[in-house]
Amino acid sequence: MDSPSASPAVGPGADEETPWLTAQEQRLWRAHLDVSRLLEYQLGRELQPYGLAMNDYEILVVLSEEPKRRMRMTDLATATLQSKSRLSHQVTRMEKAGLLVREGCPGDRRGLYAVLTDAGWETLRKVAPAHVRSVRHHFVDRFDADQVSALYEALAPVAEHLRALRGRG
Amino acid sequence: MDSPSASPAVGPGADEETPWLTAQEQRLWRAHLDVSRLLEYQLGRELQPYGLAMNDYEILVVLSEEPKRRMRMTDLATATLQSKSRLSHQVTRMEKAGLLVREGCPGDRRGLYAVLTDAGWETLRKVAPAHVRSVRHHFVDRFDADQVSALYEALAPVAEHLRALRGRG
Repeated sequence: MDSPSASPAVGPGADEETPWLTAQEQRLWRAHLDVSRLLEYQLGRELQPYGLAMNDYEILVVLSEEPKRRMRMTDLATATLQSKSRLSHQVTRMEKAGLLVREGCPGDRRGLYAVLTDAGWETLRKVAPAHVRSVRHHFVDRFDADQVSALYEALAPVAEHLRALRGRG
Repeated sequence: MDSPSASPAVGPGADEETPWLTAQEQRLWRAHLDVSRLLEYQLGRELQPYGLAMNDYEILVVLSEEPKRRMRMTDLATATLQSKSRLSHQVTRMEKAGLLVREGCPGDRRGLYAVLTDAGWETLRKVAPAHVRSVRHHFVDRFDADQVSALYEALAPVAEHLRALRGRG
């Protein structure tokens, strides 16, 4: 058994209603976990020379795509799958780095927005090509067109299921 | 453009040698990132009632599969894809919880081992069925047999590529 992350060597039948993963399922689960963690690590590493973490990059992209390059903090937390408190810490760091600012919104008392600065936009313009290159080199370009389709068809419903669960909190 | 994590809205052609992701590639990249992060979140959440984090569980499994339920700390760091310093903090926590102990090895001066305790083994026996159920419900059982094969064939070489990079440090 080569997967350290699901069925352990405590023997089968520990739960009558839940069969252990088969050898093939174990291998898939291990491959998914490894790709997931190692890719996050590698992409983060390749962003380091630009002074950005993966989460920083993601926030810059999300804001860059919004009208007026701004988004309500609560929506930004949802979009980036972070807790509000963790996002708040991160935005504080990014604000200090000059990449964005927090702004209230007149006439909208509950609205606090994160707004991309010109420096944030320029940073994104500068970093994006290298990041896309990383994503291609370590992930996307390693699949042929059929695999891209098959992976998407398989993963999209899982993502949807998990987003719905997360939304329910 | 619905992916917040690769090509941003800074326009195509920012780098002549690296084409932006196509719409389909973006969708795959987004689906992978979401599954990756949301699954880690969800599985962690379902381990919480047992007082374990995902990394704790993984360490219990790795040790349970070793002869004498022990592993050199440096090998355990490699097996769980963690830095030695991070692993050390985690092992300290788990040692306090009684799940494992650190032991030197007579005649092996550089060897410091993490050893599963009986309590750690019992915890794993108790938690494993629920964790396998989670892995099945949120991931494995959402694919048919063909998808399990296709996903594995696609992801395994990527995992291998990334492990080799990580190994090079």
